Amino acid sequence: MPHITLNSEEPGIRGLLRYRPETGRPISELAEVLLRGPSTLTRGERELIAAYVSALNGCRYCSASHAATAAAQLPDGMALVEQVCVDAGTAQVSAKLKALLAIAAAVQHSGLSVTAGQVADARAAAATDLEIHDTVLIAAAFAMMNRYVDGLATIAPEDPAVYTAGAQRLISQGYFPPSTEPGSQT
Amino acid sequence: MPHITLNSEEPGIRGLLRYRPETGRPISELAEVLLRGPSTLTRGERELIAAYVSALNGCRYCSASHAATAAAQLPDGMALVEQVCVDAGTAQVSAKLKALLAIAAAVQHSGLSVTAGQVADARAAAATDLEIHDTVLIAAAFAMMNRYVDGLATIAPEDPAVYTAGAQRLISQGYFPPSTEPGSQT
Repeated sequence: MPHITLNSEEPGIRGLLRYRPETGRPISELAEVLLRGPSTLTRGERELIAAYVSALNGCRYCSASHAATAAAQLPDGMALVEQVCVDAGTAQVSAKLKALLAIAAAVQHSGLSVTAGQVADARAAAATDLEIHDTVLIAAAFAMMNRYVDGLATIAPEDPAVYTAGAQRLISQGYFPPSTEPGSQT
Repeated sequence: MPHITLNSEEPGIRGLLRYRPETGRPISELAEVLLRGPSTLTRGERELIAAYVSALNGCRYCSASHAATAAAQLPDGMALVEQVCVDAGTAQVSAKLKALLAIAAAVQHSGLSVTAGQVADARAAAATDLEIHDTVLIAAAFAMMNRYVDGLATIAPEDPAVYTAGAQRLISQGYFPPSTEPGSQT
């Protein structure tokens, strides 16, 4: 049961975005830009970073949600997502993505844990400055999302079908809940 | 030296907000709502929570910046901020603020560390659900900000006068850099 009384039955972060739309709007906008906006990283790769960091943080709702969203947008689907979450170092991903996942894991621990060597490895694997920037910010943003979701003890449904359906909704509609979309009249 | 090449000499998060305005805008908006928007917690109290969490995360730029901003808006100034950062449990703050600081410290570690007992203590000290929500989200947001700032190795000036001047600018102008203010033409 959530630590505070929400105004809907929606699980995870969705109930929080609805409870406090003034903060929900910029949080949704940040997720939309980082995970779905123009980027040289695919949407599947960015969702994979989000799922990986959420798994490292032990956030059941966010890791299941972003794992499903990554799996639906990656050629190797859930098998690859699970491989990354078990051991990113040996997963079948490109050298660039592997180096970015190592940076994300460092950020999950602390910003101070990121080393110049990790950044050099990413650059040697052809990662751009913007890709390194966005990887750090995705990992940092999920340090926030995961703490927000679990710090208020929101509900994480057990049924995997909930996350599969949520992934389809995110892929087709994006991260703005209808009532917080910029310019929305509701 | 920052891990990536920024497009300004601005220190800490300011250089990052300028480097990537698409993400800078929602991050600034979130800080503006949480730390300066309408609330039953004073701006000084909210900046104190931000400074405290940033100190726990070892983020020199953010802790100095928000300590200065808190100190300028609290009756007991920097002495109180330092007391809280050394030992929030014995600091001379209200029972409500003490209970909220304990929740913030739990969130700094992990969302899963927040206990029903801590929430009950805050409620017993007359904290509202919205105050508990905002405390969790401020602490979670600084898990992001601190990791963003340090994960990219941004510059943290040594001179305390930089932070005092920055605090005055934040207090008078808020968290939107001029170029990212909503509706801005630039």
